[in-house]
Amino acid sequence: MRSSSTTRPSGRTPIQLRPVTISRAFTKHAEGSVLIAFGDTKVLCTASVLEKVPPHKKGSGEGWVTAEYGMLPRATHTRSDREAARGKQTGRTQEIQRLIGRAMRSVFDLKVLGERTIHLDCDVLQADGGTRTAAITGAYVAARDAINQLLQSGTLKSDPIIDSVAAISVGIYQGTPVLDLDYPEDSACDTDMNVVMTGKGGMIEVQGTAEGSAFSRLELNALLDLAEQGIAELTQLQIDAFKA
Amino acid sequence: MRSSSTTRPSGRTPIQLRPVTISRAFTKHAEGSVLIAFGDTKVLCTASVLEKVPPHKKGSGEGWVTAEYGMLPRATHTRSDREAARGKQTGRTQEIQRLIGRAMRSVFDLKVLGERTIHLDCDVLQADGGTRTAAITGAYVAARDAINQLLQSGTLKSDPIIDSVAAISVGIYQGTPVLDLDYPEDSACDTDMNVVMTGKGGMIEVQGTAEGSAFSRLELNALLDLAEQGIAELTQLQIDAFKA
Amino acid sequence: MRSSSTTRPSGRTPIQLRPVTISRAFTKHAEGSVLIAFGDTKVLCTASVLEKVPPHKKGSGEGWVTAEYGMLPRATHTRSDREAARGKQTGRTQEIQRLIGRAMRSVFDLKVLGERTIHLDCDVLQADGGTRTAAITGAYVAARDAINQLLQSGTLKSDPIIDSVAAISVGIYQGTPVLDLDYPEDSACDTDMNVVMTGKGGMIEVQGTAEGSAFSRLELNALLDLAEQGIAELTQLQIDAFKA
Amino acid sequence: MRSSSTTRPSGRTPIQLRPVTISRAFTKHAEGSVLIAFGDTKVLCTASVLEKVPPHKKGSGEGWVTAEYGMLPRATHTRSDREAARGKQTGRTQEIQRLIGRAMRSVFDLKVLGERTIHLDCDVLQADGGTRTAAITGAYVAARDAINQLLQSGTLKSDPIIDSVAAISVGIYQGTPVLDLDYPEDSACDTDMNVVMTGKGGMIEVQGTAEGSAFSRLELNALLDLAEQGIAELTQLQIDAFKA
Amino acid sequence: MRSSSTTRPSGRTPIQLRPVTISRAFTKHAEGSVLIAFGDTKVLCTASVLEKVPPHKKGSGEGWVTAEYGMLPRATHTRSDREAARGKQTGRTQEIQRLIGRAMRSVFDLKVLGERTIHLDCDVLQADGGTRTAAITGAYVAARDAINQLLQSGTLKSDPIIDSVAAISVGIYQGTPVLDLDYPEDSACDTDMNVVMTGKGGMIEVQGTAEGSAFSRLELNALLDLAEQGIAELTQLQIDAFKA
Amino acid sequence: MRSSSTTRPSGRTPIQLRPVTISRAFTKHAEGSVLIAFGDTKVLCTASVLEKVPPHKKGSGEGWVTAEYGMLPRATHTRSDREAARGKQTGRTQEIQRLIGRAMRSVFDLKVLGERTIHLDCDVLQADGGTRTAAITGAYVAARDAINQLLQSGTLKSDPIIDSVAAISVGIYQGTPVLDLDYPEDSACDTDMNVVMTGKGGMIEVQGTAEGSAFSRLELNALLDLAEQGIAELTQLQIDAFKA
Repeated sequence: MRSSSTTRPSGRTPIQLRPVTISRAFTKHAEGSVLIAFGDTKVLCTASVLEKVPPHKKGSGEGWVTAEYGMLPRATHTRSDREAARGKQTGRTQEIQRLIGRAMRSVFDLKVLGERTIHLDCDVLQADGGTRTAAITGAYVAARDAINQLLQSGTLKSDPIIDSVAAISVGIYQGTPVLDLDYPEDSACDTDMNVVMTGKGGMIEVQGTAEGSAFSRLELNALLDLAEQGIAELTQLQIDAFKA
Repeated sequence: MRSSSTTRPSGRTPIQLRPVTISRAFTKHAEGSVLIAFGDTKVLCTASVLEKVPPHKKGSGEGWVTAEYGMLPRATHTRSDREAARGKQTGRTQEIQRLIGRAMRSVFDLKVLGERTIHLDCDVLQADGGTRTAAITGAYVAARDAINQLLQSGTLKSDPIIDSVAAISVGIYQGTPVLDLDYPEDSACDTDMNVVMTGKGGMIEVQGTAEGSAFSRLELNALLDLAEQGIAELTQLQIDAFKA
Repeated sequence: MRSSSTTRPSGRTPIQLRPVTISRAFTKHAEGSVLIAFGDTKVLCTASVLEKVPPHKKGSGEGWVTAEYGMLPRATHTRSDREAARGKQTGRTQEIQRLIGRAMRSVFDLKVLGERTIHLDCDVLQADGGTRTAAITGAYVAARDAINQLLQSGTLKSDPIIDSVAAISVGIYQGTPVLDLDYPEDSACDTDMNVVMTGKGGMIEVQGTAEGSAFSRLELNALLDLAEQGIAELTQLQIDAFKA
Repeated sequence: MRSSSTTRPSGRTPIQLRPVTISRAFTKHAEGSVLIAFGDTKVLCTASVLEKVPPHKKGSGEGWVTAEYGMLPRATHTRSDREAARGKQTGRTQEIQRLIGRAMRSVFDLKVLGERTIHLDCDVLQADGGTRTAAITGAYVAARDAINQLLQSGTLKSDPIIDSVAAISVGIYQGTPVLDLDYPEDSACDTDMNVVMTGKGGMIEVQGTAEGSAFSRLELNALLDLAEQGIAELTQLQIDAFKA
Repeated sequence: MRSSSTTRPSGRTPIQLRPVTISRAFTKHAEGSVLIAFGDTKVLCTASVLEKVPPHKKGSGEGWVTAEYGMLPRATHTRSDREAARGKQTGRTQEIQRLIGRAMRSVFDLKVLGERTIHLDCDVLQADGGTRTAAITGAYVAARDAINQLLQSGTLKSDPIIDSVAAISVGIYQGTPVLDLDYPEDSACDTDMNVVMTGKGGMIEVQGTAEGSAFSRLELNALLDLAEQGIAELTQLQIDAFKA
Repeated sequence: MRSSSTTRPSGRTPIQLRPVTISRAFTKHAEGSVLIAFGDTKVLCTASVLEKVPPHKKGSGEGWVTAEYGMLPRATHTRSDREAARGKQTGRTQEIQRLIGRAMRSVFDLKVLGERTIHLDCDVLQADGGTRTAAITGAYVAARDAINQLLQSGTLKSDPIIDSVAAISVGIYQGTPVLDLDYPEDSACDTDMNVVMTGKGGMIEVQGTAEGSAFSRLELNALLDLAEQGIAELTQLQIDAFKA
């Protein structure tokens, strides 16, 4: 299935991530603020600590973790409408922010968090494919920073984060499974899959979509193999971000 | 992983679908109108033929296939707000209708369809888990009926449908992979996956989500095996629906 | 005024209702769930018991009865926009649901109901004229079922329903007053009137509209005579629905 | 039924209208601009001529007549929310503006009007019951003024208005049928009816609603008798308004 | 800079206000109700006393003063869309109502007012330029009336109003600074400035905008001189309004 | 008036701007993309060239320049709601984006621009007072870059930009007029003024607001003097940005 002759537009090998950079404390007000770049895709992820919970958690003793996603109008090749001006978020935006929220909640013990909310905002400053996977990977670092601050201040006695979480896209480009699709690949891909996994290697979300023609179990397995590798790399980069 | 002692709330075996019924021509105005039941989940799927296309297809010579999804306010255990009265569709609704639309487009040759739209409406009359998979499975039959009518009237000279499509949910319930989750299982599941496949066995969508704890590749594979079986059964039921 | 030669499109006599069927317990979750058919017009009416009241009734010791109305997009000859997707209910929808709500409240003693709400949802699955009159007639049966359940469980000690209520349309078709307009008649009618009456024969609403030319007192009286007859028949059918 | 001892809060006899004044050319920009007062109810009705028609009339050679209704926030005893700030019109507002529009169209020959729109705006400056009937009665005068201007300028060769139209409320107050309800009566009424009739005496709309208990045919007839008298008076006042 | 030969469309001298009339108690329900006319610009300003405050003032012991602004659809030369029907207020409307609110708050001691709200509604019945300045000038009189009523009834022990406030527009028309722009001047102006001042001569708002070409400090000063004169006149007219 | 003893929270002198940096080509897709910082206030300004104009300019031969403004939810000390999720822009947002649009249009010759739109998007990444003035100053540089590109490609033959434009805030802080308010000063200011001027020194907008007590002509003049100085500095920094 994998043809050795495929050339990715970026010149990367099939298993090669784009250069990933994670900059913490990018803005000053948020409890966690991370600019994450997957190549030319740049997402600002902030984590805000709110001392309240949504109605369905009131009085439960549990906290909540939620996310919102946005894209600046000219983050893309051609300008797209500003959602605030149109008066509603697109279905795509809602789908992505629900995905980010679920991914983040999967590594939180909401009882340990207590009745407060970690609100993650992921805003795409520049888009070149893979904005949702960059958002999840960066949002984890921002959430980690916010929780660390609550631990240091003594507000939290024990750590509500039970694992790290990261995400990557994989796809079949010209017959070859490739890791971390950029925009030119994403537009031309037959199959596109987003995978969310924890630092310990557990799967949180697998979302594979046939774009042109259907895909097989064999292809699915090759894509999952690639994703596991990529997420291991991202997990290490998340760890490294706290060393600097 | 699979514990022989698990008892499903419904008494079904792990590989057993709920009783599925597909009633064509359920209402009289639509070009295709199907009431599909997956046990107590009942979805009315209509296919409307519109002799126009959305702006991004105008002048392209190609058609469009799209879907909308709704749930009657009291389709569920407790009444939920009417989306029309609230003034917007929830993120969940939009996510589901986007999924149905992609699934249906995956089996259409839009060039052969010509500049017209097949608009699928999937409205849940009664919900008991698995509404989106029932909707996809029923919408295909409604679309098939609408296209057949266009072929019989001579409006279409050749068939734009290239394969059938169906969907099923699978999940890990009390440690056991089970097929076609009903509501009590869905609420208690650790992992929940929706799989969309064509009649020929190609994969169109795989959407797996860890609800409580992460899942493994092994579990993923067991779930996909189950889904393949279930979709083969649904495909046969779709074929049978046209025999009666 | 009445010309003996008029032929209704359906072949009915001027004083003949369409076949009316009332199916209780049509769906399983709602406290009352009725599918009512006036010929090809089919409306699903559910009654939900909510243990809360709107703000203007809080602390009053009184309950509330309200209704919402919707039409599936392809209930009609040509597909109409989904109100949830458009983001608002049409004026027609709001007018109808306000009418249903007033009709239902007219037979309730809100003090006896206590601080709870009976929320009626009337959703048109198939439309062929007279959807609002079918909705009122069916909603009464659904409300009756919901209240019976509250009486049987002991939640209510005495019956808050003081009379039954039903509705019918009448109109002048080709010069002849006719009962229970179907869609072809409705579209061609000079005058169209909806009448809501109680089982005891009291009038609750009379809404007559000249569509083409004005109508006279004589015509109005002929229409009201017809409506009284029709409602007496519907009242009997409501009673019969509880015998089966 | 009619008890001679009833005293109306205003001291009026049962068949007595409030003082009605009709002031033409109240504002200067509109083609027709009428301030109409039914006692303390004051409505500004403007008629605008627009040289375009809504989509469903395009290319038909016919025109359109439509109406919008609003109430200033402090037209009422206690301030009500501004609909523009809330972001939507209430169901009541929509119901009223649909009624005004139908009433006005009933006296227009849309073919003679040609492809243009008469847009009526009825804004309540002060409310004391009967705003919709004052609005219809005033809107006719504003429309008449706008059409006269089109006739005088030669834009229209013949008159598209085929009759005059006016409206009045009637109700049963403390057992007595009374004409032209003011707010104190309206709040205390058992039955409330709005009647729209043409100058020639044809009925256009009859909308009767039981507020507390049901009403009888006898009561309905007494109310219609009163309404006919009232509308005859209003028709004369409309004629007089053009004499001054 | 000032050319003696300029002729204003209205024939006014550069320093001449339009005829200003202030009619108190224009409508009967509001605690303050003022119809103010600046020539053909007519604005109805009502002041409502609400015994509640917005969330950010709850429990503060302080009151609130706020304003809303609207324009009847046919207040203008050509009909503009009704904001309530469009479902949102324009940016211009919001800008104006925020300005009115700030202007009114500048003369209120919110502590003395206590936890209640003065809600000002300014609705333009007829527009001919300068609607926001007429609205501010009239709203003050309406607020004054409402507060007087609270003082007379003993609800307030001392006066929360610390000064009067009025507003006027100035602009450079054909090279000459002129006072109180009407619509023909406003459309043709190079620079347009709205000035809000207190009765004691303090400045509250200065909003100057170059419409065609930039303006100089010299021009700015000439405009402010004019505005001061105009506001002194308006302040006197406000005082006189309470003498009649 | 100016008390020599005032200490600004930042330690700046009254006439001292915050450090201003202007980074061009900050993102890669937009025709102009500028990150501008006024101290801790950071705004991303992009200029998009759209080969279309809004309806009111169609067929006029003239172009259009417009702006939209947004603030990331956690640009501020405490998280504010995302406008896209709330479904509408606040009045403040609309006021600011209208101001930016007017400022930019004041230096454009729309005829020379031809029928195309320059769409400016100003998104605040971090807020510390003065976001609107930073936005205007940065938007000019982005627009200049976009126009330069059109000139270089030959799409435009001559330059539609007739002057540069910049903006600064001034205010009276503890009795002293100070330049370029940061957030601590802005919150504590008696008077707050935003001034927009061209590179040649013409005034475009002057918006002064008394926050606590009214201001005098003398104070106004002192503030304008400061603003002129500040804008001269900003103009030089805009020029320098193109030298690097």
